[in-house]
Amino acid sequence: MYRALRVFARSGRLARAPASASALGLSGAAVLPVWLPNAARMASQNSFRTEYDTFGELKVPNDKYYGAQTVRSTMNFKIGGVTERMPIPVIKAFGILKRAAAEVNQDYGLDPKIANAIMKVADEVAEGKLNDHFPLVIWQTGSGTQTNMNVNEVISNRAIEMLGGELGSKKPVHPNDHVNKSQSSNDTFPTAMHIAAAIEVHEVLLPGLQKLHDALEAKSKEFAQIIKIGRTHTQDAAPLTLGQEFSGYVQQVKYAMARIKAAMPRIYELAAGGTAVGTGLNTRIGFAEKVAAKVAALTGLPFVTAPNKFEALAAHDALVELSGAMNTTACSLMKIANDVRFLGSGPRSGLGELILPENEPGSSIMPVGGSNGHFELNVFKPMMIKNVLHSARLLGDASVSFTENCVLGIQANTERINKLMNESLMLVTALNPYIGYDKAAKIAKTAHKNGSTLKETAIELGYLTAEQFDEWVKPKDMLGPK
Amino acid sequence: MYRALRVFARSGRLARAPASASALGLSGAAVLPVWLPNAARMASQNSFRTEYDTFGELKVPNDKYYGAQTVRSTMNFKIGGVTERMPIPVIKAFGILKRAAAEVNQDYGLDPKIANAIMKVADEVAEGKLNDHFPLVIWQTGSGTQTNMNVNEVISNRAIEMLGGELGSKKPVHPNDHVNKSQSSNDTFPTAMHIAAAIEVHEVLLPGLQKLHDALEAKSKEFAQIIKIGRTHTQDAAPLTLGQEFSGYVQQVKYAMARIKAAMPRIYELAAGGTAVGTGLNTRIGFAEKVAAKVAALTGLPFVTAPNKFEALAAHDALVELSGAMNTTACSLMKIANDVRFLGSGPRSGLGELILPENEPGSSIMPVGGSNGHFELNVFKPMMIKNVLHSARLLGDASVSFTENCVLGIQANTERINKLMNESLMLVTALNPYIGYDKAAKIAKTAHKNGSTLKETAIELGYLTAEQFDEWVKPKDMLGPK
Amino acid sequence: MYRALRVFARSGRLARAPASASALGLSGAAVLPVWLPNAARMASQNSFRTEYDTFGELKVPNDKYYGAQTVRSTMNFKIGGVTERMPIPVIKAFGILKRAAAEVNQDYGLDPKIANAIMKVADEVAEGKLNDHFPLVIWQTGSGTQTNMNVNEVISNRAIEMLGGELGSKKPVHPNDHVNKSQSSNDTFPTAMHIAAAIEVHEVLLPGLQKLHDALEAKSKEFAQIIKIGRTHTQDAAPLTLGQEFSGYVQQVKYAMARIKAAMPRIYELAAGGTAVGTGLNTRIGFAEKVAAKVAALTGLPFVTAPNKFEALAAHDALVELSGAMNTTACSLMKIANDVRFLGSGPRSGLGELILPENEPGSSIMPVGGSNGHFELNVFKPMMIKNVLHSARLLGDASVSFTENCVLGIQANTERINKLMNESLMLVTALNPYIGYDKAAKIAKTAHKNGSTLKETAIELGYLTAEQFDEWVKPKDMLGPK
Amino acid sequence: MYRALRVFARSGRLARAPASASALGLSGAAVLPVWLPNAARMASQNSFRTEYDTFGELKVPNDKYYGAQTVRSTMNFKIGGVTERMPIPVIKAFGILKRAAAEVNQDYGLDPKIANAIMKVADEVAEGKLNDHFPLVIWQTGSGTQTNMNVNEVISNRAIEMLGGELGSKKPVHPNDHVNKSQSSNDTFPTAMHIAAAIEVHEVLLPGLQKLHDALEAKSKEFAQIIKIGRTHTQDAAPLTLGQEFSGYVQQVKYAMARIKAAMPRIYELAAGGTAVGTGLNTRIGFAEKVAAKVAALTGLPFVTAPNKFEALAAHDALVELSGAMNTTACSLMKIANDVRFLGSGPRSGLGELILPENEPGSSIMPVGGSNGHFELNVFKPMMIKNVLHSARLLGDASVSFTENCVLGIQANTERINKLMNESLMLVTALNPYIGYDKAAKIAKTAHKNGSTLKETAIELGYLTAEQFDEWVKPKDMLGPK
Repeated sequence: MYRALRVFARSGRLARAPASASALGLSGAAVLPVWLPNAARMASQNSFRTEYDTFGELKVPNDKYYGAQTVRSTMNFKIGGVTERMPIPVIKAFGILKRAAAEVNQDYGLDPKIANAIMKVADEVAEGKLNDHFPLVIWQTGSGTQTNMNVNEVISNRAIEMLGGELGSKKPVHPNDHVNKSQSSNDTFPTAMHIAAAIEVHEVLLPGLQKLHDALEAKSKEFAQIIKIGRTHTQDAAPLTLGQEFSGYVQQVKYAMARIKAAMPRIYELAAGGTAVGTGLNTRIGFAEKVAAKVAALTGLPFVTAPNKFEALAAHDALVELSGAMNTTACSLMKIANDVRFLGSGPRSGLGELILPENEPGSSIMPVGGSNGHFELNVFKPMMIKNVLHSARLLGDASVSFTENCVLGIQANTERINKLMNESLMLVTALNPYIGYDKAAKIAKTAHKNGSTLKETAIELGYLTAEQFDEWVKPKDMLGPK
Repeated sequence: MYRALRVFARSGRLARAPASASALGLSGAAVLPVWLPNAARMASQNSFRTEYDTFGELKVPNDKYYGAQTVRSTMNFKIGGVTERMPIPVIKAFGILKRAAAEVNQDYGLDPKIANAIMKVADEVAEGKLNDHFPLVIWQTGSGTQTNMNVNEVISNRAIEMLGGELGSKKPVHPNDHVNKSQSSNDTFPTAMHIAAAIEVHEVLLPGLQKLHDALEAKSKEFAQIIKIGRTHTQDAAPLTLGQEFSGYVQQVKYAMARIKAAMPRIYELAAGGTAVGTGLNTRIGFAEKVAAKVAALTGLPFVTAPNKFEALAAHDALVELSGAMNTTACSLMKIANDVRFLGSGPRSGLGELILPENEPGSSIMPVGGSNGHFELNVFKPMMIKNVLHSARLLGDASVSFTENCVLGIQANTERINKLMNESLMLVTALNPYIGYDKAAKIAKTAHKNGSTLKETAIELGYLTAEQFDEWVKPKDMLGPK
Repeated sequence: MYRALRVFARSGRLARAPASASALGLSGAAVLPVWLPNAARMASQNSFRTEYDTFGELKVPNDKYYGAQTVRSTMNFKIGGVTERMPIPVIKAFGILKRAAAEVNQDYGLDPKIANAIMKVADEVAEGKLNDHFPLVIWQTGSGTQTNMNVNEVISNRAIEMLGGELGSKKPVHPNDHVNKSQSSNDTFPTAMHIAAAIEVHEVLLPGLQKLHDALEAKSKEFAQIIKIGRTHTQDAAPLTLGQEFSGYVQQVKYAMARIKAAMPRIYELAAGGTAVGTGLNTRIGFAEKVAAKVAALTGLPFVTAPNKFEALAAHDALVELSGAMNTTACSLMKIANDVRFLGSGPRSGLGELILPENEPGSSIMPVGGSNGHFELNVFKPMMIKNVLHSARLLGDASVSFTENCVLGIQANTERINKLMNESLMLVTALNPYIGYDKAAKIAKTAHKNGSTLKETAIELGYLTAEQFDEWVKPKDMLGPK
Repeated sequence: MYRALRVFARSGRLARAPASASALGLSGAAVLPVWLPNAARMASQNSFRTEYDTFGELKVPNDKYYGAQTVRSTMNFKIGGVTERMPIPVIKAFGILKRAAAEVNQDYGLDPKIANAIMKVADEVAEGKLNDHFPLVIWQTGSGTQTNMNVNEVISNRAIEMLGGELGSKKPVHPNDHVNKSQSSNDTFPTAMHIAAAIEVHEVLLPGLQKLHDALEAKSKEFAQIIKIGRTHTQDAAPLTLGQEFSGYVQQVKYAMARIKAAMPRIYELAAGGTAVGTGLNTRIGFAEKVAAKVAALTGLPFVTAPNKFEALAAHDALVELSGAMNTTACSLMKIANDVRFLGSGPRSGLGELILPENEPGSSIMPVGGSNGHFELNVFKPMMIKNVLHSARLLGDASVSFTENCVLGIQANTERINKLMNESLMLVTALNPYIGYDKAAKIAKTAHKNGSTLKETAIELGYLTAEQFDEWVKPKDMLGPK
């Protein structure tokens, strides 16, 4: 409604449109544009119906439910191609929202026949059955107006079809008056963003991290008794167990899940009910709360209506916050993956402490490329949600892939670990209480200079006996406070 | 060759592979994995042939030219889905490279029958005719090994088919020994990255920027006589012409093209001939230079062989540099787009100096979202090239879209511009030489306080006559040095 | 202790040091280096004492408490100059930590005379009394080793002075054996990072945000009755009150504080007790817990010992997380500042709805430059903590400055607001229920085309009377759901 | 001039200033503010003189040359403290600019006595003699207005002092009318930014990179005969020489210098002469060109006047471009430093191929932290130039420090290198032409499985004799094309 009126308020300019406008085919009944998808271009003239919007008539492919505004958007935004399309999770989230809104609108008096038809189609959208009918790219207006209208048009036409009407007639189910009732692009798109983000986090990201966490924890226990040399600044340091080393990774992933969850409360807040500028103009009291409750019921997630709709429309801090949590998660995964990569370097000329599973010819460690996924804050909503969903999906998928193809198959190269451990000069630390700091230091320096072992050197220097060395230098006594 | 041997060097580990490996279907003749594309899954068992790699046998869809290693990669890297696939420009670039390499290999003795078959298929790849046979995502090994093998397998099988052989037999055209001859993933993938980037820059990015430049320049001339108020810090400032304001944008886009071009010389350097680690092991003297020359001839771009192959394989500074140039370009476009957006704000409650074309219901300014496209440097090649190509494409497409849908149709709202101009207090500057700084300041302060015009105030204060004001305060005399 | 032994383990290499080492003055009793601070250079030879570390002797300025290792670091890391020095909040945090450790060490048997001297000096460090004795830059080892030793040396020498000993003698208070007892650079530096970050958040950042929040909330209430035109995509939209608009800002700042606080629990976890690699080697059971409790008591903040010391040493996810929260906060402040800037643009040729306080000649809106403060994740601790502290300080200071110099003085330009409001075409929305969508749209289009008012146009078109227009079009009825 | 008039245009608002303004000490003769530097606060009332600007009177410390506007800015912008001060290179650049402008103004008629006094003081500023008189932080207006006025005030007062006048009297050298003649903050600050950046690049960055380049090149030659194992994906690969490996680094640094230089032409373009909005209002024809020529003569750098002043004032793409080049440089240095770090890991449990110089207790590799210095593009000039100068300085200093403390002292651990080389399984590649791919692969797999050498295995499998192995497997024949 608001969107439509805004058009009226501005479309008067059309009279003053430059001469070039017609050259661009921007008004009147457009000829078939050459940039349409192949399928459309190959279709004959008969495969099109005529629809119209406030700018005029346009030909719409007969096998598509979308209408004139969607076609017009494909004409105006030829940016990036199919890989730039609005992510399907956003489309599905719109299905959930439109269903919830129709239910609430029925409570407030919308004709049940119309409401029910909208609900049925909205369910189809939510289930991904109509994915082919959403051709628009994210490079559209920053408010997501075109995608909201794409959804309205698809639901309208499909509902009209169900009820035996004529596609494009807007009767008996009007895209604006009925499907978009009590709504505006300005509040529906942010609502769909939050629904989509929450679902992706719960269905892909958190399960992926949990799986990785569990696999790392199992390895941490499996490796609990393997004592190895520690490394700081890539230099040899005091010993620890391989299990202790992995326990650090476990903690990182555990905290990653906590961080993601901590960001969700503000994602659960929905803008629906704010309409054009946050005031809720042309909605009924209670509409916002009821829609949020319906969405919560449909998704099983604790959505609520945003306490301040002005903030919910004008800022997207909640997504920036979630993105920050995912960025922290990505940093954690990068740390883990790099450690595994270097500990598994070799087979002969690297550190070689871990034996990584061989999965395919030439395979190295799984890339966890999402780890560098610094989110680019952007004031344009469609790009924001695409990036957030992309990050969530990549982190979730990469966690699963890393777990299945790498972590589960990691073996400790105990032979190598022991060799490095026993050659290490850092064990000299254990002699301090017995022979003093100075003699201990002398042993280490001499051994390093001569390339000899600590034991040999210590005996040679006459500081202790072989028996004393064996009794005092026990790596397993160096693994914790006393 | 190197890649394959590397496998041997490592695959001994398979004997020690964890029990879970078989559970993951990672060896032996795999059953049809459930995660294959729908089409594949719906096919009957009869639609598959059996191929093998060093890890064992795998079933390959009969309607695809790729082989066992490609299938294995799809099993191991289930990350992100189809939108994450290796960009088609990289595949096409591989077509060009493989054709060039086959020509040179023939010069060095490769059987002309085999070389010719490779060339024919490579041309098909370069022309995009075999796009459906490249299913791999960018989340693979950082060297791009799987995609290189995907290309080798497709060319091998398609060439075998042409020559009447059996798919998967590797005879008479072997994917490694013939298609990948004198090559390694480690030098072919960087080569394809540079070819793809250079082509995208020349075919999409630079033409898009040129188009935008020309449109802005035309507007700058069209608006040469329209004097308007300047703004600094969003506050009213001294006057300039709308044409002058647009000339700044023209200069920005002109420099953007210069910056992109300045980054290209290092993109034109190709790694081909460095093979596994940059030494050129198992190539012939002259191979590197000849391949670069062939690629240059095939593309019409001035490619040369990289003077230092170690740098060309181990670093990707050239792409970081190009990305930096595109980032600067994006910043320039963002500046321009935001200016246009604010100058066109309204229609009644904004600045309203520009009338922007109305393209569709609810449309606002075109997003130039790529403008925030800060490149994420990444050590993993596939992700790098995807991002570089993405940026080039978005900047190019957005420039064209912005030009066609916005710049070409921009009109000056001269009525509004004049009104703001004449109401401005900044014109008082012109009185300085006649009545002095103090009196001029007094006029401005009084007019601001009373909400009156400069002329009224000046006369009221008795500092000058109406005639004098009109003679001395001429915005058109304030547009340049004297 | 660990650090020192590590030195022994490596310093054997010195025998093989290249000829150039001596040229660099890296060993032996160094001559006075020319790059020392002016004050030092101007001092006579008599103003220096000789101290030594495991690399040899060095001259140390007599008026400084630091020792040989600190001097050596200034010789090796001539990067960036004084503005790159370790932030004072980190030094103060070290004071708190060293005091806490001394207390606990006394519990475990450290000579009370020594422990008390350490505590006294540590308090001086915590109070900022010895700031001039910490000359090191953040560009040192990533573990912060040099700064930890700088602190140990300063406390040792100052305590020796207090006890009547000779500076540099390491008796009776040894920098390693006593001040650094049961500690390592690897656990003390991360501990000091967390203490410093927590204090800066509580003393600067949160109070600054609270002040801004309260000022915005007061303005929101003050402006509760001022109805104005809304703007979406910078285009005129439905009305709202200026108070509602500001309430969105209030919500953003409220959430900003919630986000910062949500990141703190993991900042309160301290690494102290993990020593060299996280195992707690050479500490006593209970040491870690007691130190955290002492730090909590000293600061009044709920510090606890980190549940997993391996994670606490090897990752710095907690600071990445806090940085993410500050980045979100910065985005929020940027949104608010930009809105205020544009709403206050003018005085005559801008939007002009807000009258911003004039604070100085030429002043514009306060910069909230920290808003772009994307944190650069870095594996090097000193740089990380410098950036985190920098962000916290800038956000806090900018909030206070913005509040005092701008927000408190903002006035609504009600005359301008009313004018824009009443001229707006978007009020036509209110006619929908009375005359229908089509006629309402016709009115808006005609008014826009003719530059006339809605009322004039509506009457002229014969759709309603002046009385009806006044009754139906009431902006104050458009501010919420019905 | 423009700035001052702008004040008049806006300061009328002061009459409507909120009650809180006086509480903040923002008008009238301010009492001594508590936040002034300690030194100032400790001074007695007698140590201050009274100066005024268009907002009223203020007390100025007697020992400082700055005036009322500078003091007022310190009152309004209490953000970040001394480490946030305008970088000294910007102040020095202003000195150069003001000298150049005074010379040109004299050509156009400025009283030679005044012009000469300005030139003398400007030289002092350029030489850093008056650094203590520039207390302002970068968090000021985005145009740098306060710093320009700080410079004008200092030059004015110091020149007045030279000529025997009274500080603060603005006679005979007026800060606006004389020092800032034909100038505006809007063109002087961008000019100073470019001068400062160019000087820092030429005096710190490029020399630092050259030094690093030369040291790496020397090492590359020194290590030309040392054959070592290559590594890809951290896994063992084909051999190359250590000299070849270092030659890649040399190439990276060589290109880094080329990239920096390629960005300079647009840095050499100066905005001076554009005055308030780029039109050059109130300058004389030729002024811009002459000022650029004078600056070029004073600095020895090829500065020219910007061809389009609108772009030069409104955009800062040139600095974004330079920042992109420095970012690429930082990536290159990070790659090199990380390689050196890992090749030098050990001493016993790491790769250990390089022996790094030991510079101080506990020292690890030099941090090249600037490498992550992604530039934060910011619309606020002072922050931009601070960041650019910071990056240039850090990269230059870090290059020198890395060269002197690390690169010069790097030694090859030839024993270790040979051991790893000879144990490597990748040498099997060399057998391919003699015994075929299959047998070669069998040897590698068997050797890996059994942990035996290639030679042992090859003989054991009966594929060749010991003599044949020694003849065929020669790493030095694997270093290039044949």
